[in-house]
Amino acid sequence: MAAEIVNPRSESKTGDTDHEGGAEPLDSFDPAFALHRGGKMAVQATVPVRDKDDLSLAYTPGVAKVCSAIAEQPELVHDYTWKSSVVAVVTDGTAVLGLGDIGPEASLPVMEGKAILFKQFGGVDAVPIALACTDVDEIVETVVRLAPSFGGVNLEDISAPRCFEVERKLQERLDIPVFHDDQHGTAVVTLAALRNAARLSGRALGELRAVISGAGAAGVAIAKMLVEAGIGDVAVADRKGVVSADRDDLTPVKQDLAGFTNKAGITGSLEAALDGADVFIGVSGGTVAESAVATMAKGAFVFAMANPNPEVHPEVAHKYAAVVATGRSDFPNQINNVLAFPGIFAGALQVRASRITEGMKLAAAEALAAVVGDDLAADYVIPSPFDERVAPAVTAAVAAAARAEGVARR
Amino acid sequence: MAAEIVNPRSESKTGDTDHEGGAEPLDSFDPAFALHRGGKMAVQATVPVRDKDDLSLAYTPGVAKVCSAIAEQPELVHDYTWKSSVVAVVTDGTAVLGLGDIGPEASLPVMEGKAILFKQFGGVDAVPIALACTDVDEIVETVVRLAPSFGGVNLEDISAPRCFEVERKLQERLDIPVFHDDQHGTAVVTLAALRNAARLSGRALGELRAVISGAGAAGVAIAKMLVEAGIGDVAVADRKGVVSADRDDLTPVKQDLAGFTNKAGITGSLEAALDGADVFIGVSGGTVAESAVATMAKGAFVFAMANPNPEVHPEVAHKYAAVVATGRSDFPNQINNVLAFPGIFAGALQVRASRITEGMKLAAAEALAAVVGDDLAADYVIPSPFDERVAPAVTAAVAAAARAEGVARR
Repeated sequence: MAAEIVNPRSESKTGDTDHEGGAEPLDSFDPAFALHRGGKMAVQATVPVRDKDDLSLAYTPGVAKVCSAIAEQPELVHDYTWKSSVVAVVTDGTAVLGLGDIGPEASLPVMEGKAILFKQFGGVDAVPIALACTDVDEIVETVVRLAPSFGGVNLEDISAPRCFEVERKLQERLDIPVFHDDQHGTAVVTLAALRNAARLSGRALGELRAVISGAGAAGVAIAKMLVEAGIGDVAVADRKGVVSADRDDLTPVKQDLAGFTNKAGITGSLEAALDGADVFIGVSGGTVAESAVATMAKGAFVFAMANPNPEVHPEVAHKYAAVVATGRSDFPNQINNVLAFPGIFAGALQVRASRITEGMKLAAAEALAAVVGDDLAADYVIPSPFDERVAPAVTAAVAAAARAEGVARR
Repeated sequence: MAAEIVNPRSESKTGDTDHEGGAEPLDSFDPAFALHRGGKMAVQATVPVRDKDDLSLAYTPGVAKVCSAIAEQPELVHDYTWKSSVVAVVTDGTAVLGLGDIGPEASLPVMEGKAILFKQFGGVDAVPIALACTDVDEIVETVVRLAPSFGGVNLEDISAPRCFEVERKLQERLDIPVFHDDQHGTAVVTLAALRNAARLSGRALGELRAVISGAGAAGVAIAKMLVEAGIGDVAVADRKGVVSADRDDLTPVKQDLAGFTNKAGITGSLEAALDGADVFIGVSGGTVAESAVATMAKGAFVFAMANPNPEVHPEVAHKYAAVVATGRSDFPNQINNVLAFPGIFAGALQVRASRITEGMKLAAAEALAAVVGDDLAADYVIPSPFDERVAPAVTAAVAAAARAEGVARR
């Protein structure tokens, strides 16, 4: 067919710059711009459409039988369409990377990136859906209306605290997995790294006191997950200090957080909380003074995950900590969500899970941690994103957990 | 990577039937079911994601520069994402093929089919979006919210008269092409065939009187387009007879139709209108008696496009008509929308048209008709869907018309 000839992308691929839309950005020779020209993804047919006979099966009249069968037995949609292999990557563009509220169009390169990571690492098809609305109920209603076409919903880069409400409401209304990766993906990978750090130092999670810097999507989810996993204690600090019940400036989400974290009743600054703490987890984008890191307990773990600038530089952290992790690929122990979300969705879709439970996330963290196995070392508490064992291990663990928890539908 | 291993589709591909969802359909060995297992489409990355360096360009941190550039210069979204090559194929599942209102899930096989035809014939990426709402304003609002992610919207299988209002409202609110294929795709291909039939018999469109059976999406759009193209006269009949101003049972759309069709002031039945008519166009799903076809003018054209049963069998039509066309692939002169929509969208996207104008549709029809060229014959007034010249010809004509009409943005 003539696909090559008439590809609407072909003009831009040839480097045409003569469009009315405005001047090229100054650094258009930056390799990132060159790579992004025309986008990073495409759709492909997985069945032949070469001749009349192909067309009469894939389209009319043959397709009508398949449609009728689904109309009679709705669950067949999972067997005879791509629904059960495709995830909507949904954003409103309000909290994109460290860039903040840049709007739906400008968020698309990230959503496309996410989509191709889903495919590459999990074999999951994914479609970027950047929404032109930011109201919680509008987002929820829109995604509910889209849901028939998708097997799952990955929420992405929606600012807190709206992201919590969007996720909760969608989970109530939909019977397909809804997963806010900025929360749970980060939490799963962090827990996996923490499990291995604890194993390396011969300690149980229950012996550890952790301090999280940042009470946004990631911080809240990590705190919840550490508590689920049996951490000794965890305190979360926002810009105003440690979240504790005695504060009168807490949002509902932080009030909730105060209820199940900070058993020690710490008040005051993040730095004060670090005194004697076993674990620091940074998801704030802020910085932590070396003097505060120096007050942590002996053999501490420092996960300084802010990107591109970790809360404390890994070289500084190493002076005081037994295990150091970051969000960066140029240091050891990269806490990267891509270790979790492709396998979590692949596992959930494989068994047609109606939701992603706490048990499935904990299973994902355990499976991810287990990939490290006997190679465990201070600079290897989490696998590389390119470790081919990761996605199959997470997928299998999540599928098994879904079955065990009764949310699998096959 | 491990994509093959963990593909969530792999289980169903191996023919697993042990799922809780219900029994397999009786005819699950039908080749259409076999072909549809696991769906008909997938997403693919068009850039490498093999190692750390790839990831740092396609995803963080490299992607942030691209996002920031789009935030500053919104039109760059067309250059650096797949927006300008991807179309949403939107339905509410209310008028699917001849099956009617079967709901969004059951419509998905058709939408996937449409999506792969977009790709195969036009090089256009397309994503099925089957909506769980049927209210006009809800559909409109939902598509408006989705629009940042897409370069165009192809409306599909939405029942009349809601389809007219959905399209009109979306065109008012969006600055990307919105095109209801059941209307305009059908009209473009019909006009192309009619132009060639007229050329074959040495007549101008202005000399012809046409009768259309069916006042739904296709019938209304064909009538409009024939008038735009300069047909002598056209009358449209619904189940109650010819649409004329003296009827008091007309919907607003049909009142409008009565205003610009049927100059001859015909009243009464479809059969009565056929007496002496030069052209019959059937998009009704009904039947027309041979005795009525026999009353048409000498050298008439009969386009009996109902599927799978033409309004009059082509063999019968041939007894009275000079040119016969159907919607079926097993007779000559198949009026098939796939001749139009891939090239129309490819052309519109190529020049980033803000809409698809009447001029662009007329240009598409002319380009499609011209592909037949000197091979014109009674059994060849329209090219085959598999003629590789079609999509490039339509694409080029539509792009040129968009520029000529001032709706192109590059």
